[in-house]
Amino acid sequence: MATPERLVVIGGDAAGMAAASQARRHKGPEALAVTAFERGHFTSYSACGIPYWVGGVVDGPDALIARTAEEHRARDIDLRLRTEVTEIDLDRGRVRSRDLADGGRETWTGFDKLVVATGARPLRPPLPGIDAPGVYGVQTLDDGQRLLYGLRGAAGRRAVVIGAGYIGVEMAEALVHRGFQVTVLDQGAQPMSTLDPDMGALVRTAMCGMGIEVVTGARVTGVLTDEDEGQARAVVTEDAEYPADVVVLGLGVRPETALAEAAGLPLGASGGLRTDLALRVAGQEHVWAGGDCVEVRDLVTGEHRHIALGTHANKHGQVIGANVAGGYATFPGVVGTAVSKVCDLEIARTGLLESQARAAGLQFVTVTIESTSRAGYYPEARPMHVKMLAERRTGRLLGVQIVGREGAAKRVDIAAVALTAGMTVEQMTALDLGYAPPFSPVWDPVLVAARKADAAVRATGSAGPR
Amino acid sequence: MATPERLVVIGGDAAGMAAASQARRHKGPEALAVTAFERGHFTSYSACGIPYWVGGVVDGPDALIARTAEEHRARDIDLRLRTEVTEIDLDRGRVRSRDLADGGRETWTGFDKLVVATGARPLRPPLPGIDAPGVYGVQTLDDGQRLLYGLRGAAGRRAVVIGAGYIGVEMAEALVHRGFQVTVLDQGAQPMSTLDPDMGALVRTAMCGMGIEVVTGARVTGVLTDEDEGQARAVVTEDAEYPADVVVLGLGVRPETALAEAAGLPLGASGGLRTDLALRVAGQEHVWAGGDCVEVRDLVTGEHRHIALGTHANKHGQVIGANVAGGYATFPGVVGTAVSKVCDLEIARTGLLESQARAAGLQFVTVTIESTSRAGYYPEARPMHVKMLAERRTGRLLGVQIVGREGAAKRVDIAAVALTAGMTVEQMTALDLGYAPPFSPVWDPVLVAARKADAAVRATGSAGPR
Repeated sequence: MATPERLVVIGGDAAGMAAASQARRHKGPEALAVTAFERGHFTSYSACGIPYWVGGVVDGPDALIARTAEEHRARDIDLRLRTEVTEIDLDRGRVRSRDLADGGRETWTGFDKLVVATGARPLRPPLPGIDAPGVYGVQTLDDGQRLLYGLRGAAGRRAVVIGAGYIGVEMAEALVHRGFQVTVLDQGAQPMSTLDPDMGALVRTAMCGMGIEVVTGARVTGVLTDEDEGQARAVVTEDAEYPADVVVLGLGVRPETALAEAAGLPLGASGGLRTDLALRVAGQEHVWAGGDCVEVRDLVTGEHRHIALGTHANKHGQVIGANVAGGYATFPGVVGTAVSKVCDLEIARTGLLESQARAAGLQFVTVTIESTSRAGYYPEARPMHVKMLAERRTGRLLGVQIVGREGAAKRVDIAAVALTAGMTVEQMTALDLGYAPPFSPVWDPVLVAARKADAAVRATGSAGPR
Repeated sequence: MATPERLVVIGGDAAGMAAASQARRHKGPEALAVTAFERGHFTSYSACGIPYWVGGVVDGPDALIARTAEEHRARDIDLRLRTEVTEIDLDRGRVRSRDLADGGRETWTGFDKLVVATGARPLRPPLPGIDAPGVYGVQTLDDGQRLLYGLRGAAGRRAVVIGAGYIGVEMAEALVHRGFQVTVLDQGAQPMSTLDPDMGALVRTAMCGMGIEVVTGARVTGVLTDEDEGQARAVVTEDAEYPADVVVLGLGVRPETALAEAAGLPLGASGGLRTDLALRVAGQEHVWAGGDCVEVRDLVTGEHRHIALGTHANKHGQVIGANVAGGYATFPGVVGTAVSKVCDLEIARTGLLESQARAAGLQFVTVTIESTSRAGYYPEARPMHVKMLAERRTGRLLGVQIVGREGAAKRVDIAAVALTAGMTVEQMTALDLGYAPPFSPVWDPVLVAARKADAAVRATGSAGPR
């Protein structure tokens, strides 16, 4: 019998374990030996669920685990938890790992094929007090557990969230649910810098209406700690001091690529690993990479971006698993879709912001409309703002942002598909979207925006030389 | 000053009045005189809202009127309510109308341009008793008003709905809301013949769970009336007799084209008026048609179909209005999207059913998956069945049907856009759809279906000669 091919996977979360599982589906243990290394305690979990666990909306941590270590092992995946890979030796086809549970015992493991799925690390600026007890990240299940203990033991009910992006606003909701008085600090002009400022302003208004204090233009300079226990007790900005019994960091993430970089694997301008469409690392025959550690192609601009999202990581894993097993699949790229909520406010975007379109050299029109989630006369019709960007002259859709209540977030999928297909806003005006009074006005809000954008494109049609 | 051009519009609902309004936006009364004829009492109303008005969910009839006669007249549209056009004289460029409120006084009105928007008429098979008091249609606001009076005066609380299509199931819900014991009769194998039978079976199960009796394979032979007052008291089928204090007809509609046909305007095989892409009636220079009286191009098969839907009618009106005013717009066609609900059950479809794909000569694979509206661990994650059809070999998406609870119906929009763009199910597996636990599992149900359909297409890839 031939020796099975050896696959090593670094990182036991979405991308890595999806790759391992998918490869295993295609090839049995007699053809492929799969070893996966994970430095944490858990595999295949929903990091996106952590804010809801912290907020008490969902149970955790078990409910957030899509597939346990035991389930992976039952499918003949040699999964090594609490084991950190410390070196990739591409020349000799092996990785060195350290068993964190066993005094750091080191082992070398050989591979024929390698998958790098090392994820991302949360931004933690090197400020005084940032590592003090009482300051929490929310990247891993371990982080979530620590924060929950922290909330229970907090001396008071004041929480400060640093960063008003997706994680920041979701954590603000979670802390409100836990009875905290929440202040969110952000250095931008508006919360949600993943939206244009005019749409971010709508989020700010809604958050304030929920009793959440939103402070923008806030440059955090450090965390004050009490003298006795070193516990965080306030967040300091250039302008003020915000008392805090709990501090949560929601500053976003960067690709975790130190290991890959040390091995000479190529990074893109975004800092993520550079891959081809089959997610093979650029220039490598037997190395694939996926998940939060890679950069992805932006299908609207053709440029590469780093976007850490579980849904991409899962897709990457599927693609890598198929390719590792000798099949063929690609990950063509993303259009930048993201949805979130703060209490009952839904926030969605896809494609480019104004700033991104401008940076890409595009000229465009923007329109913003207000409509409702259902026919205006139908109960619980909720207001919804839709902003749309379309390229000047061509009318190609460039981006959509939606802020509203029930029914707002997932409407962005319409635009996500239209962007993928390269549709113009004029083409979009004819889209055959689902209509019935409980689900939409007779003109869906996205169609209303497309009509207005189409009119704006036509109005610029004759301006200036081609 | 030149004489204004004369536009005549026949039909004062969505398509007709949208055309009139849009034309007026582009051209003032000095350039265009607009006369619109409507035989009923109301203009520009949401017929789709009637079941919710009858069910007491929304107020009516005023709330269902998007724009009143007065509002139209204030914009210099000469709107003649209760006035029925009885003849189109194309040779002399004039229409004959009858004033229903004024003893049927007849008038001739000349036109330079004509818009035919005569709508649809509900099917009412010529069966004994079908016109008896107590048997109601639900096509117009007048119908809705009559039915509401009928419900109040009903001798008992038993209702029979004939037809289990969209109107039938929506009326079933409305009657449940009004405290009626509801039986729905349909001659098909399952309710909702706009779905494949396997998906219709899910609707049946859910309806039965709501206490609605669903009788399929039921051929209605007549309505029994009581001897004294001639009031309907039971619906008779070939097999049984269903006592009824109220009978509602929900058998669908046919294009109302008698007037156009008499004038020699061309009908398509579907019975609707045949137009070009600009909605000009085939062979006519100065006549446009839109709304429920025309047939539309099915973008999936290229064939023409009759689909009566307010959202299409509104789009038609916009396109016609622009063209009548000398602009340029087209209505490329539809993909057959429709959404509805019965109580909390959401029902959606787009593209082709199995039977339609087969009739078009297409070979295809079908898959059905069950998933949830939100991450499985998130509260109120509701089950959802998604069925997907893809063309054999090419993998082109052909159709999607969704039956589920909250969050099911509007997900069909993803597929509607993908169909419009001619995407394959493989392309769909990479779609960048919005993901966050409150809104979707990490693999949106539509993506889960696309993955399974892609696998099914691949599995058929090598079967048989090309």
